[in-house]
Amino acid sequence: VTVAQVGEFGLINRLATRLESTRPKNLRVGIGDDAAAWLPTPGTLTVATTDALVEGVHFDLATTSWCDLGWKALAENVSDIAAMGCQPRYALIALGAHQDQPVADLESLYDGLAECAEAYGCAVVGGDVVYAPCVVIQVTLVGESQPTHDQGSDPALLRRSAARPGDTLAVTGPLGASAAGLRLLAASAPRLTSRRSQVEDALVAAHCRPQPRVTAGLALVDAGVRCAIDVSDGLVADVGHLCELSGVDAEIEVDRVPIHPAAATRFAEEAREMALSGGEDYELICAAPEEVLERASEMLRMRGEPPLLRIGSVVAQAGPEPSVRVRDAAGLLVPIGRAGYQHFDRSVPSSVRGLP
Amino acid sequence: VTVAQVGEFGLINRLATRLESTRPKNLRVGIGDDAAAWLPTPGTLTVATTDALVEGVHFDLATTSWCDLGWKALAENVSDIAAMGCQPRYALIALGAHQDQPVADLESLYDGLAECAEAYGCAVVGGDVVYAPCVVIQVTLVGESQPTHDQGSDPALLRRSAARPGDTLAVTGPLGASAAGLRLLAASAPRLTSRRSQVEDALVAAHCRPQPRVTAGLALVDAGVRCAIDVSDGLVADVGHLCELSGVDAEIEVDRVPIHPAAATRFAEEAREMALSGGEDYELICAAPEEVLERASEMLRMRGEPPLLRIGSVVAQAGPEPSVRVRDAAGLLVPIGRAGYQHFDRSVPSSVRGLP
Repeated sequence: VTVAQVGEFGLINRLATRLESTRPKNLRVGIGDDAAAWLPTPGTLTVATTDALVEGVHFDLATTSWCDLGWKALAENVSDIAAMGCQPRYALIALGAHQDQPVADLESLYDGLAECAEAYGCAVVGGDVVYAPCVVIQVTLVGESQPTHDQGSDPALLRRSAARPGDTLAVTGPLGASAAGLRLLAASAPRLTSRRSQVEDALVAAHCRPQPRVTAGLALVDAGVRCAIDVSDGLVADVGHLCELSGVDAEIEVDRVPIHPAAATRFAEEAREMALSGGEDYELICAAPEEVLERASEMLRMRGEPPLLRIGSVVAQAGPEPSVRVRDAAGLLVPIGRAGYQHFDRSVPSSVRGLP
Repeated sequence: VTVAQVGEFGLINRLATRLESTRPKNLRVGIGDDAAAWLPTPGTLTVATTDALVEGVHFDLATTSWCDLGWKALAENVSDIAAMGCQPRYALIALGAHQDQPVADLESLYDGLAECAEAYGCAVVGGDVVYAPCVVIQVTLVGESQPTHDQGSDPALLRRSAARPGDTLAVTGPLGASAAGLRLLAASAPRLTSRRSQVEDALVAAHCRPQPRVTAGLALVDAGVRCAIDVSDGLVADVGHLCELSGVDAEIEVDRVPIHPAAATRFAEEAREMALSGGEDYELICAAPEEVLERASEMLRMRGEPPLLRIGSVVAQAGPEPSVRVRDAAGLLVPIGRAGYQHFDRSVPSSVRGLP
């Protein structure tokens, strides 16, 4: 059965049934009306983010299942909300697809969306489905901050702009697994999974089913951290964004950058570059004074999360532009091959996101 | 200068400057962080809607300027918020474009977005820009209901599902101008505007710069109306959506359907079909008991809005499915050529939305 055979409203009804399990208590209007409606939690800030994934640019249906694609499209946005120190709540999905697309594929996509929504305590409450010459999935995710304890002031958030010289830089977990997984996917025959080792399976899963750090983000805010960003473009690039918005420089000690053990096992020396520049790990990078990070690590431990891993420090801006320097144990600058992922800066426009 | 030449972050900076005029007082985080953040107005419901526009499907760059496209992409979503009886507030834009797209085109697009945002009291607070093989503009718009007067109950909204047998059906203004404007655009040489009459200019403007009815939607809620939908797919189709969600039938008196005078002047007999099935007029259709509609017309008059125009009535569902019947002055059924616009049900996938 294709999309053209069921029509717009038939498709919406079929997709809506995949999402029924996630209806939250504050929701007043769900799918089917002109807009979704909900009651905001008193004392919270509302946060909202949007991301678009385009077939042939951000994903390749030869190596990505529809269900994984649904998970990942929502997970990217969940990570943005986590990086604000907030709880994801309400998602809207705009889907562009071919007329001759099998409906079962789109149902799998929505199964993946629903699985991710359930895992992170949010719900898909609305959207739009349209014809498009390639598959486009666009997710908007609305979240809420922790409620404020003090009526006179706003609730706290994690901002890119709040890094200060003297802060320590830390990450919430090891890096490079997603880039390693993408390398394996790109090298393998389409969907040929039978010959993969356990290590390889773990790397592919890290790429296809990323686990954003919502609990960690909430713990960081509670501990008094005020500066964070998620690792989406790559560690060095994302630290760079943080520096730009904060007007500071950063020094990363390359030997302290935590390399995901499966990536190190499978790719040896190459794994370091994956950890520095690979992107899509969706760990959080944060910057705060050392005593705040100690409190944050304790808070994370109490909530069953791994401790923070220090990777460097924030220093005053030395040149005309904020910059990131990566140094080895001897203090020498390490040249970094890529500044991370940027849209539009690609020599092969239809290639899949990742390492060259 | 093309998109590829300025890169992702250069483009974001250029587009963000087009939006600076719209920063609202409740906004805490705008463009540049992982997510936008704002303080919801106490006592309100949050509403959210999303719509995607795809090049070659929903618009044709040969007949639509970039600036009009920006206006229209946001206006469609403003209309959905108006149809909930709410005030539009915060928009997020996901834009897909070619690498070789001139940046000036996208700046014009954002000028149109900013003009519409200013006209309706909302702001563009975030988004995403990505490479895509065709231009895709996806707008998510968040709005707020009127605050509740009664702490124990939710604020009132306009719903599709609230029509009851005995209600009168009414619209907030005349119909058919947008479809007439699209007809003129499709027939004319690209951007050849010099030979158009004043009447034709008005029709093209109705199509390219639709004026959603936010003030009217707020007045309807205040007057006690609880059921509405906007005219996006076409009058008969949209009354049909209202019937489906409410579990009722509707009777439309064809002689009472208000035809836009410019459409009637230019297209004579054809204008009636445009008013019934053309779509994209973005007037509101509402259903309520007669005494509520009288109060609503008075409320609209006090706010400088035109009065409601009655077009028919809501009756009990007669058959197995909710249905819409259009009758002439003698009470005979009028056959309707199209059931309104549906995505995916099109014989020519790349044609532009509108009348066949």
